[in-house]
Amino acid sequence: MATLVLNASQLLTMAGSDGPRAGREKGAVSLFRDGAVLIEDGRIVTAGPRDVVLAHPLASGARRLSAEGRVVTPGFVDAHTHPVFTAPRLDDFEARVGGAGYRDLAARGGGILWTVNGVRGASEADLAAGLSRRAFDFLACGTTTLEAKSGYGLDLDNELKLLRAIRTVAARGPLEIVPTLLGAHAVPPEMKGRKDEYVARVCSEMIPRAAAEGLARFVDLFCEDGYFDLADLAKIASAGASAGLGLKVHSEQLTRMGSLSSAVKLHAVSVDHLDHANEDDVSVLAASRTVACLVPGSNYFLGKPYPPARRLLDAGAAVALATDFNPGTCPCWDMRAIMSIACTQMKMTPGEAMVAATVNGAHAAGLGKTHGTLEPGKAADLVCHDAEDWREIAYYFGAPRTRWTMKRGEVVASLS
Amino acid sequence: MATLVLNASQLLTMAGSDGPRAGREKGAVSLFRDGAVLIEDGRIVTAGPRDVVLAHPLASGARRLSAEGRVVTPGFVDAHTHPVFTAPRLDDFEARVGGAGYRDLAARGGGILWTVNGVRGASEADLAAGLSRRAFDFLACGTTTLEAKSGYGLDLDNELKLLRAIRTVAARGPLEIVPTLLGAHAVPPEMKGRKDEYVARVCSEMIPRAAAEGLARFVDLFCEDGYFDLADLAKIASAGASAGLGLKVHSEQLTRMGSLSSAVKLHAVSVDHLDHANEDDVSVLAASRTVACLVPGSNYFLGKPYPPARRLLDAGAAVALATDFNPGTCPCWDMRAIMSIACTQMKMTPGEAMVAATVNGAHAAGLGKTHGTLEPGKAADLVCHDAEDWREIAYYFGAPRTRWTMKRGEVVASLS
Repeated sequence: MATLVLNASQLLTMAGSDGPRAGREKGAVSLFRDGAVLIEDGRIVTAGPRDVVLAHPLASGARRLSAEGRVVTPGFVDAHTHPVFTAPRLDDFEARVGGAGYRDLAARGGGILWTVNGVRGASEADLAAGLSRRAFDFLACGTTTLEAKSGYGLDLDNELKLLRAIRTVAARGPLEIVPTLLGAHAVPPEMKGRKDEYVARVCSEMIPRAAAEGLARFVDLFCEDGYFDLADLAKIASAGASAGLGLKVHSEQLTRMGSLSSAVKLHAVSVDHLDHANEDDVSVLAASRTVACLVPGSNYFLGKPYPPARRLLDAGAAVALATDFNPGTCPCWDMRAIMSIACTQMKMTPGEAMVAATVNGAHAAGLGKTHGTLEPGKAADLVCHDAEDWREIAYYFGAPRTRWTMKRGEVVASLS
Repeated sequence: MATLVLNASQLLTMAGSDGPRAGREKGAVSLFRDGAVLIEDGRIVTAGPRDVVLAHPLASGARRLSAEGRVVTPGFVDAHTHPVFTAPRLDDFEARVGGAGYRDLAARGGGILWTVNGVRGASEADLAAGLSRRAFDFLACGTTTLEAKSGYGLDLDNELKLLRAIRTVAARGPLEIVPTLLGAHAVPPEMKGRKDEYVARVCSEMIPRAAAEGLARFVDLFCEDGYFDLADLAKIASAGASAGLGLKVHSEQLTRMGSLSSAVKLHAVSVDHLDHANEDDVSVLAASRTVACLVPGSNYFLGKPYPPARRLLDAGAAVALATDFNPGTCPCWDMRAIMSIACTQMKMTPGEAMVAATVNGAHAAGLGKTHGTLEPGKAADLVCHDAEDWREIAYYFGAPRTRWTMKRGEVVASLS
């Protein structure tokens, strides 16, 4: 049976061109007052002005759902997260507020290796149970599709365990999850000083195995001074491509490595973080189809300067926003909080933030053709916000403001 | 009938000395694992370790409420808000992101006078209805007591209308509201250039009338270059004192006026904002009983530098945190978001932020004797957070994380 969503004070379809949005489309939200959406079999039939939608033959017999004068938008596509772990890093948080840096945290037994130890000691079922709880938090905040990285296992069995936990939760639904193998997140402690050997294992064992079991859609690496370098990027991208996996890259985050231009040449779907991207990088991105996936929640949480969103947008690059949800540097599953940070701290307009959180997020997750807008044939993933004007989504910060979230045409989280 | 709250993974009573907390008590939360709280007639009978509480004679017949292994703290006391208005200032938000300043917004017809026009055109009932909706948002985020200012009327009738709307919502409950007359928020447009005449009206008409009708507990003013000066502060404080009202001051916000030391001499219960407080001001505060009420949400929203929280705390001043909830510069009713900003941007510890949001907030609202801690005889205002460790309250940001909120012993908001 079809579903008809009616009485949206404002409907944002985000309809527009096919590729990632940039240039004159960078802030275009395609707004309809008193909008309606017609849905069948989990997909959009049509969306737009009430009269046009009601004239569709399927509309008369459809189940009706009123948005009660509230704002309806596509569900958020959060294209960069690390959501599978055992516990929040609260000791790190407290120590960092007191002035501790990355090295101090590591010396105290904190940092990423604390999370790796937790994951290695956990069962796949426990990891899946934790992710399952977090999946509801994402949905309740309006995220309907998530990119989820492994990267806290750092050996074959544990990376596969993380990816299998993701598969379990994805299969259960309703949150849709795009899995990414981030074997090269750090060199595991037992292989300290043997980075090249570890990269060889990632390329020869992890990537083929994850691909063969259908456990990953992308490979990613932490391309950073002291972690993995440009040669590792080339090897991992090549192994990924051979296995049919796309490429995403943690790029120019703590220092400028030159990974952005390398990643673009390797047809990465996204380059992420970009705190230290320079003007050359901005130009390279603007001339490419690669999406700049910015994660300013981590800059906020660490109290660090923000990536150059304004320069990227003004140069014509396509910008996505993601949470970077992870236990060490961004404990936030709320894309609205990230939009607030983007507007107030990086001076993105509300329209640019909405494009970045929906359609460009979908492109950064390799789902641009099927997700991120409310156009005919696309996934019926919608959020009804507790707002009358869509700009309220980025304006208010901190509070629960979702009325309901719909995934594939079914209401899956309701906070009324 | 008594109520017994059991099974708190961590209970924070915030018990300690009587005055505002500073110095060695600045981050002391008084934590009990497997804590319990016994409540009768809306007040705390006793709170602490399970065994001790269960041994109380009233415990055996009490209605039981399980915290289900979650964290229980006092409800937040938000000691600085401007919550009565008609509509969010979304055009200002969008323009400011695009680079507009205070003067630009005013020239476009935005800024505070846009809100004043809205309030003047609204009925008392409509203003009360809007505040009533917002009261639930505060409760849902864990705030049980609110200081609420007038200040968008700017003439006798409209300021009284705002205060009566506050009284209506306060009487309805369950959110407890401490009303403040902020007649001297700005000079009204019809009296442009006649500031002294307006201050005379505030002192001779507004203050006595608000006090006589029991509509205000404090007076406040925007002591700022181009608004109201130190002479106005003295006049308003004096008129307020004569009418039995306490003093709160918007101080050293956009520039340094010297209002902090004047306000301390006038026994202000709090000085608020303090972005431009200098070392002399820090010393003056540390030697006083006046609370520094910081509102870093507005700094965040405007993208401005933060007040010197670390220097205030290290010098021994008592620091409270508040939202500054208002439609122009801080659209946030969530004290947890403010605690997150305090920790990540001002480097307050989680303990300092919790003290600032509860017991010191109560002192900044003139309620230190009855609110802000879970000690015998105090108001049974509690929050059950969706957390196992209390530090998660400031660590996560953006998401709904309240399990339930209790005001005077009754659960008034539940997001399970």
